[in-house]
Amino acid sequence: MSEPKSTHIRWHGANVDRNEREALLGQRGCVVWFTGLSGSGKSTVSRRVEQLLLERKVVTYGLDGDNLRFGLNKDLGFSAEDRSENIRRVGCVAQLFMDSGTVTLTAFISPYQRDRDAARALVGAERFVEVFVDTPLEVCESRDPKGLYKKARSGEIANFTGISAPYEAPTAPEVHLLTDGKTVDASAQEVVDYLETRGFLEA
Amino acid sequence: MSEPKSTHIRWHGANVDRNEREALLGQRGCVVWFTGLSGSGKSTVSRRVEQLLLERKVVTYGLDGDNLRFGLNKDLGFSAEDRSENIRRVGCVAQLFMDSGTVTLTAFISPYQRDRDAARALVGAERFVEVFVDTPLEVCESRDPKGLYKKARSGEIANFTGISAPYEAPTAPEVHLLTDGKTVDASAQEVVDYLETRGFLEA
Repeated sequence: MSEPKSTHIRWHGANVDRNEREALLGQRGCVVWFTGLSGSGKSTVSRRVEQLLLERKVVTYGLDGDNLRFGLNKDLGFSAEDRSENIRRVGCVAQLFMDSGTVTLTAFISPYQRDRDAARALVGAERFVEVFVDTPLEVCESRDPKGLYKKARSGEIANFTGISAPYEAPTAPEVHLLTDGKTVDASAQEVVDYLETRGFLEA
Repeated sequence: MSEPKSTHIRWHGANVDRNEREALLGQRGCVVWFTGLSGSGKSTVSRRVEQLLLERKVVTYGLDGDNLRFGLNKDLGFSAEDRSENIRRVGCVAQLFMDSGTVTLTAFISPYQRDRDAARALVGAERFVEVFVDTPLEVCESRDPKGLYKKARSGEIANFTGISAPYEAPTAPEVHLLTDGKTVDASAQEVVDYLETRGFLEA
């Protein structure tokens, strides 16, 4: 490698690109975008997918409310505008992780089709896997792990998806998980199988 | 692995954690934060570091204006407030990449000590490496790769760091690169050597 000795000439170093990173990692970057109602099992299935992929030595990273709402998106609330900005930023960060060669999993309610479509466009459709975690509202509400449905029904929480705010179900998700009566493992395996079929698990 | 068959019981899957990712990758996540004037060589040195690390099979990712200003931070301008928000978001995203086990390189002017300190606090001091790319203003201005200094001197660009806006030089950077008269390779190697000494290049 030769380069000018004078620092007065700017040496435009080429970026290490995605192909090189993917060859090193032995996998292809993608975004696995889980969407569904609160309590549908997005995070739970997503985490199980991460564990299954770790066993196969696939490098993953999960983005969810736990690591974004208290950091990057801590300035955002739950108005329609803030929800859209929240999902816009998630999409941008997911795109960066995809570009790094990581199998990136996001778990957000993301109730609006236009926001999910924007994320798909940003990431690139060929690297975007929309996973609809389709769990009936009554099942989600009976789980109510954080007591949020109860608060939504009483009016203590406004704009709650499925109760007082819309959820626009995906019309053409890459993976449609009908979770009711199915184990977490079975749902997670369905996602892993799809990723394998699409060739993301090897470079 | 046993788990409840009823989907009415929420199975709290454990996250794959950073230790597991780092063991898989054979390295430790960190943030290498390049700071310096426009034209000082932040991006150039950072890219060369990435190449040197790739040769050693270390997984890296670089964050810079090219992949953030047009995506995540496209809503931000160059006022003092927007610059701080820009750097806050960069710090948050860098923290996520660090948490993923990646050797993360950021290349932003980041002129304010308080913003760099905030990034350090967010990432965790033990995982944060501040690299001061210390190139004399007259050298940066003579390079002027994008013609920005010329526009700043003529007043066409306001609030330009080093000309019409302050640059607060780091007082205690982990790596202090005196780049003048040194090759890009030599500067980059200095950073790599430091990362090796700190144990980031193996798990």
